[in-house]
Amino acid sequence: MPNLNNGRPSGAVRALGIDPGLGTLGYGVVLQTGHDLQCEAYGVVKTPTGLSLSARLLCLYNELHSITEEYAPDIIAVEKLFFGRNVTTAEMVWQARGVVLLLAAQTGQEPYEIKPNEVKMAVCGYGGAEKAQVQGMVTHLLGLAKNPSPDDAADALAIAIAGLAVRNYDRNILKGS
Amino acid sequence: MPNLNNGRPSGAVRALGIDPGLGTLGYGVVLQTGHDLQCEAYGVVKTPTGLSLSARLLCLYNELHSITEEYAPDIIAVEKLFFGRNVTTAEMVWQARGVVLLLAAQTGQEPYEIKPNEVKMAVCGYGGAEKAQVQGMVTHLLGLAKNPSPDDAADALAIAIAGLAVRNYDRNILKGS
Repeated sequence: MPNLNNGRPSGAVRALGIDPGLGTLGYGVVLQTGHDLQCEAYGVVKTPTGLSLSARLLCLYNELHSITEEYAPDIIAVEKLFFGRNVTTAEMVWQARGVVLLLAAQTGQEPYEIKPNEVKMAVCGYGGAEKAQVQGMVTHLLGLAKNPSPDDAADALAIAIAGLAVRNYDRNILKGS
Repeated sequence: MPNLNNGRPSGAVRALGIDPGLGTLGYGVVLQTGHDLQCEAYGVVKTPTGLSLSARLLCLYNELHSITEEYAPDIIAVEKLFFGRNVTTAEMVWQARGVVLLLAAQTGQEPYEIKPNEVKMAVCGYGGAEKAQVQGMVTHLLGLAKNPSPDDAADALAIAIAGLAVRNYDRNILKGS
């Protein structure tokens, strides 16, 4: 597969956003050049329910490894989820998320862990935005003809945009502006 | 490091037991030859609290990778934990456990996921055994001079013994005995 890293414009920053999950994991790749945001790819990684937990985690890891090899992101942003008391769902997603964070560390990156309200804030300007508002703004910001589908992929694009926003904020703080 | 796999007696089975955790992960290596159980190694992997979550997961992965390379276990047994409603503790342990299961899959193994009551049943003969009873029986079964320490390492040895018991049970079922 081509390494798109070489083809990016000077000063551009590529973000890989990840919405963690065991059965379905969403990913989205967004390139920022100045104030322009461009969608380069999005999709989902699905793991067969018939496989064991460890085999599914290996599927996720291998697919994500291919994606990071192909797009060579400058930053990786991973949603930090909250489950309240739904521990059964949570344990599967957390185990998948452990694999995602490991892979980020193996690529030499310190992943941005982004909370749901930070995603809404970055994309819509306020932390209480509805899901449909977030998806509409993702479509608008990326100049897409229609809302990305499925939802996990759209969420991952929003997470990538939020990762870029946090990075820009951190850099501006460092510059004292 | 020497590959101890080559030095094991014919018909012997080596189990790596793992008590998952982010700050402290326990491991234990037990060799079964017929009805004899021998402790080959035990210890803990600690990750610095000053590191990020992803960096700590990478530490765990790298240390465990070295352990699996050194001992080349025939089976890997990982405790399946229950946290009730303590979600904050749970999320860190689950993320660490995802990395453990991934590594098992990468070595070509289908890990045994062992519940706490299965560990107690395998080591003490009943699922309601107290922690001190389990540790005492581990010391007895492995012919050790004193209880292994720290607790996470002792727990991992118990998990390894339980993994061997489940394997033997599965094989006897297959043989129809």
